Amino acid sequence: MESSLGRIFTITSFGESHGPCIGVVVDGCPAGLPLTEQDIQREVDQRRPTGPAATTRAEEEKVEILSGVFDQHTTSAPIGLLIWNRDVDSSEYERIRHLLRPGHADYTAFMKYGGYNDFRGGGRFSGRITATFIMAGAIAKKLLALIGTEVLAHTVEIGGIKARPRDPGDIRKNINTNSLKCADPETAEEMLRMIERVKGEGDSLGGIIEGIALNVPVGLGEPVFDTLEGDLAKAIFAIPAVKGVEFGSGFSAATKKGSENNDPFIVQNGRVITASNNAGGILGGISNGMPVVVRAVVKPTSSIAHSQETINIKTMEGAVLEVRGRHDACIVPRAVPAVEAMMAITLCDFAIRAGLIPKVINGVS
Amino acid sequence: MESSLGRIFTITSFGESHGPCIGVVVDGCPAGLPLTEQDIQREVDQRRPTGPAATTRAEEEKVEILSGVFDQHTTSAPIGLLIWNRDVDSSEYERIRHLLRPGHADYTAFMKYGGYNDFRGGGRFSGRITATFIMAGAIAKKLLALIGTEVLAHTVEIGGIKARPRDPGDIRKNINTNSLKCADPETAEEMLRMIERVKGEGDSLGGIIEGIALNVPVGLGEPVFDTLEGDLAKAIFAIPAVKGVEFGSGFSAATKKGSENNDPFIVQNGRVITASNNAGGILGGISNGMPVVVRAVVKPTSSIAHSQETINIKTMEGAVLEVRGRHDACIVPRAVPAVEAMMAITLCDFAIRAGLIPKVINGVS
Amino acid sequence: MESSLGRIFTITSFGESHGPCIGVVVDGCPAGLPLTEQDIQREVDQRRPTGPAATTRAEEEKVEILSGVFDQHTTSAPIGLLIWNRDVDSSEYERIRHLLRPGHADYTAFMKYGGYNDFRGGGRFSGRITATFIMAGAIAKKLLALIGTEVLAHTVEIGGIKARPRDPGDIRKNINTNSLKCADPETAEEMLRMIERVKGEGDSLGGIIEGIALNVPVGLGEPVFDTLEGDLAKAIFAIPAVKGVEFGSGFSAATKKGSENNDPFIVQNGRVITASNNAGGILGGISNGMPVVVRAVVKPTSSIAHSQETINIKTMEGAVLEVRGRHDACIVPRAVPAVEAMMAITLCDFAIRAGLIPKVINGVS
Amino acid sequence: MESSLGRIFTITSFGESHGPCIGVVVDGCPAGLPLTEQDIQREVDQRRPTGPAATTRAEEEKVEILSGVFDQHTTSAPIGLLIWNRDVDSSEYERIRHLLRPGHADYTAFMKYGGYNDFRGGGRFSGRITATFIMAGAIAKKLLALIGTEVLAHTVEIGGIKARPRDPGDIRKNINTNSLKCADPETAEEMLRMIERVKGEGDSLGGIIEGIALNVPVGLGEPVFDTLEGDLAKAIFAIPAVKGVEFGSGFSAATKKGSENNDPFIVQNGRVITASNNAGGILGGISNGMPVVVRAVVKPTSSIAHSQETINIKTMEGAVLEVRGRHDACIVPRAVPAVEAMMAITLCDFAIRAGLIPKVINGVS
Repeated sequence: MESSLGRIFTITSFGESHGPCIGVVVDGCPAGLPLTEQDIQREVDQRRPTGPAATTRAEEEKVEILSGVFDQHTTSAPIGLLIWNRDVDSSEYERIRHLLRPGHADYTAFMKYGGYNDFRGGGRFSGRITATFIMAGAIAKKLLALIGTEVLAHTVEIGGIKARPRDPGDIRKNINTNSLKCADPETAEEMLRMIERVKGEGDSLGGIIEGIALNVPVGLGEPVFDTLEGDLAKAIFAIPAVKGVEFGSGFSAATKKGSENNDPFIVQNGRVITASNNAGGILGGISNGMPVVVRAVVKPTSSIAHSQETINIKTMEGAVLEVRGRHDACIVPRAVPAVEAMMAITLCDFAIRAGLIPKVINGVS
Repeated sequence: MESSLGRIFTITSFGESHGPCIGVVVDGCPAGLPLTEQDIQREVDQRRPTGPAATTRAEEEKVEILSGVFDQHTTSAPIGLLIWNRDVDSSEYERIRHLLRPGHADYTAFMKYGGYNDFRGGGRFSGRITATFIMAGAIAKKLLALIGTEVLAHTVEIGGIKARPRDPGDIRKNINTNSLKCADPETAEEMLRMIERVKGEGDSLGGIIEGIALNVPVGLGEPVFDTLEGDLAKAIFAIPAVKGVEFGSGFSAATKKGSENNDPFIVQNGRVITASNNAGGILGGISNGMPVVVRAVVKPTSSIAHSQETINIKTMEGAVLEVRGRHDACIVPRAVPAVEAMMAITLCDFAIRAGLIPKVINGVS
Repeated sequence: MESSLGRIFTITSFGESHGPCIGVVVDGCPAGLPLTEQDIQREVDQRRPTGPAATTRAEEEKVEILSGVFDQHTTSAPIGLLIWNRDVDSSEYERIRHLLRPGHADYTAFMKYGGYNDFRGGGRFSGRITATFIMAGAIAKKLLALIGTEVLAHTVEIGGIKARPRDPGDIRKNINTNSLKCADPETAEEMLRMIERVKGEGDSLGGIIEGIALNVPVGLGEPVFDTLEGDLAKAIFAIPAVKGVEFGSGFSAATKKGSENNDPFIVQNGRVITASNNAGGILGGISNGMPVVVRAVVKPTSSIAHSQETINIKTMEGAVLEVRGRHDACIVPRAVPAVEAMMAITLCDFAIRAGLIPKVINGVS
Repeated sequence: MESSLGRIFTITSFGESHGPCIGVVVDGCPAGLPLTEQDIQREVDQRRPTGPAATTRAEEEKVEILSGVFDQHTTSAPIGLLIWNRDVDSSEYERIRHLLRPGHADYTAFMKYGGYNDFRGGGRFSGRITATFIMAGAIAKKLLALIGTEVLAHTVEIGGIKARPRDPGDIRKNINTNSLKCADPETAEEMLRMIERVKGEGDSLGGIIEGIALNVPVGLGEPVFDTLEGDLAKAIFAIPAVKGVEFGSGFSAATKKGSENNDPFIVQNGRVITASNNAGGILGGISNGMPVVVRAVVKPTSSIAHSQETINIKTMEGAVLEVRGRHDACIVPRAVPAVEAMMAITLCDFAIRAGLIPKVINGVS
């Protein structure tokens, strides 16, 4: 496996859904950043399941700092962060051990790892792993805040129901008014009704998450291979169930003319901006100072109560799978903070590479 | 800049649109692969502009092997590949040097590189750079052929006109029957008419390219960070003008239920396959043996004959831009071989990492 | 900081001498390797201080596996390993906080990290960190054992007293007969007497460690930059106090003629070997099948009871330093398992890169 | 093979001794550095064989810039540099193709690359490859000059004859007064006489090169794995024939007491320095502002006129090897600029990582 991401600000994730713990090592963090367990806990708590969309697994998810922080400031040493797994019940997974769950990594993991993978709760492929991204993202967000950059993510579509566009102020204000992290509360009501209905059918729904980075400095991205789009996409694809990523006008650009899709440059308050933002804040793989806008599609939860046709990998015979366990009917809202985290981590790495975040914050030397 | 991609099979690209040459160094290639300049030339020629969609810049684009090949076989040493630039006319770029071309990297490159970037023909940000990807991709394709894996890309949408789905046999057969590399020749006619019309208006079009990898072994991909989706996406985003990447059912998964989107496992001829392929051949970030299906959106060509409002970066005053130069009204068909190349390079790196391609091919030892 | 090492078999170390714990994440380990905490504990216990050379800090150093192991086998997921720090007494370090200890990283860390570094016990620069290398090395050694490769390290010189050469059988047998991990027990007695004497003077000694890898397959190393010498050296220089690394005849090659230093090739039992081993088992940066022989010099322990002239970094005034604390009069024997570990980690990464260790060990697929 | 080195300032080397050319791609160079082919030519010319120690192969070695430079300044795009091979005579190598030359990579390359390696002139293992390091090093030296850092290397020992210590001023002045690049001209005479004598016997000599970096900023190095010692050593081991690397007091530290080897801190002109420099300018893997001092041992040239016992790898039978070709009786002086280059490249990468060299030099933005 490859469990590290980033070039200078790097994260190394470890842990499984039903193992002793999940954790992450964040390296390359500048020295002198004030950091407490509460700073990270606050972000992790965003992922906590609430509302009808969510699982009933109720982990306390208490964050522990293992290293890299001294006198409540980062030291520049690698920061170890850990959450112990407590509320683990693996019995269901033992029961269906050899039945390949459609949509899951059961088959590919079994084949790639010769049957040695920890299958319980999806093991290393569980959505739970995104808590390690969020822990690392909490640090990235604090670093980005030093240069005024803010990352926001919100649910913009579930089961085909689209939220109405909202400006950043409303997004920031509204995402915590509903369990779907949707910035359009009325539409969120409609989405929730649909989730309840589909859940009643033993089924699940997917959706689309939009991430926005505000006040991004011009110049983040290292083309031609470490483009801002490419590295953001790679980071976001690490979130289980994401199957597509687009920037700005994205796939709709296929239906536009150049004259419609090009963003005219204008000067505003002595600063160059673009009149529209079809580029999603990125030109030539480099941030142009406009909001970075990314959308990621999250497929409907693969675990459904519905019985499904599948096979038993041991016997190679057909079988009927009935997953009981505890699952989210719609994983989208819980992936929202993960998108935010992956954006923050990627932008932070680029900002450090570009020399925009100093190596020491308020240092004595 | 970051000009290297890959972990074991790595490519390092260099060169600018109007500099002396473009080139690439391919490292980590197993020894003993038969390789000639013709093998690579054949792939590069796929990118040659033809038809009404394309520029009139007519580079011979003759490939030279600089190193890494001896007695017509790879030696395992880094393979240097080079194309000299010949048909260069930079006069137009001098004229508009300080006018920011909307949709291009002019502004971001100017800011990031302090005005030192080679602006002629887009310099390092030119689509011409993809010829270096295609040279490297030619080697990757030969390596993949050793394990029976084939990569195909084709145009599936231009300016909102969608090609009808075709099976791989037809794709392979039809993509060279028209200048758009579209596997649906009748629809290609329609697309061409639309391109001609839009070109007449001094405008441009974008579209969507689909890449398919056939006979992919189970087990490519290194989650959680080097997922097959993530690394394919990152590689494809290195192609200028790509603004979105999706796999399998992609963004349409947002409108589906789990029971619709999950691909049931079945046994066929003693082999596990899935009855549908909404996953695009990837589960848990790892190939599952089904065709890997990726779609990339290419924005409409930014350079349009149409006059555009912009600013002069030197004077910070408004200006009207009229780009003359030689440009593609629709860059989509010329990006098709680049998508193929980036897929091949990424799959090849994973196949080598997974130990599926030997380090020496038909070695004496 | 940069806390990760390796390309495919990678280790990420974290933790400080006086923080909550030290730990390491080992990634890229093949699936199916039998692994228990005892396997790792056994190696860590080799570092335990014993004899007159050593500190009196008596950490239990109990290893915990946090992830990556299921049913007592590796799963291919990242393996988290941790040792809690227990016997911590930081009072002495508070007292001398601003006095720069000669030979230590106090000054460079203070300057580089702006005074935020955790200075207690040397923080991240402590020899204690090598326990994380040894944990990772324990896994590497088990993997190397699968291909019959064994790594041995032993003390060959302390304070100018040289051990007599011993063959591998004797080294294996003798290194645990004395607290210095010296394969020549009689000379070890002499070294011990010298250490006791120097310790009595409030002073310290350095020495030389030799590492030998036996039954190394031909072909490890990836020139021109990832030479076997270069990567072994880099890994070994991560051990605090190492100031030189040489292979085979090493620095003595400067006094030899080519005809003396060249190792003649001969055939023995149908296998190509060399009649001598001045190359230390490495030609052209690649293992040649002979024993890989490396020697590393360990400087005398910087912490000495002796009073030393130094400065106070706060006041920039001269000061006299008297370090009390608990220190090893000669750190050499405790660095022996670290050298073994770094050799094993490096060789293991190369063996996996060369495809000599399978990705799954005894897999069901 | 692995042909790239560095994290941000990276070099990718390619080419073989008897192939069409040798070249290097330098990536991560800040924009705005004045750079011409002459700047690089000057450094490459330092490697030119002169005097009795050297081969008679007389390559013009004319440097060409392929990319990354525009209007005589770097653009931040990857800089391609190339030297065509002209004076190539491979006949001798064809003759002895299957005779394993002792001390060379013939056997390991044959085994690792299955007989596909380009054996002519050592192919990729030739000392000629160091010209690619020197080209890259020329850029690194210009970047270091911006922060006042200078790198000097010189021959300090040949065949057991040691040069007397010289201060940096004398080194700079004297190294070009003799063909051995020795800062002690009288001893150089003695070394030359010894080389002539040994050459007359059909034999060869090795020696020791010292590299010194002056005015190094405090804080270069990224422990625990990217220590300044470790990365310098790794880079220097890429130079063929180097078999050992030591810093400061190096291997002699094994014979010293802590009180002797520790360098006392003092304040001089308001700056912290050390009274001695046994640490070679590095503490805790980080530069301390004192001169960085490294010594590398170069083994005696493996190619000797002397007849040698060896085997034929095809027949596995004993054979007598008589190498004619054109060889250096002592390669040490020609490796001196390579040591300088590798030091400069490594220090430059660290200086950029530490944010000490700006991303744009005298930028307009």
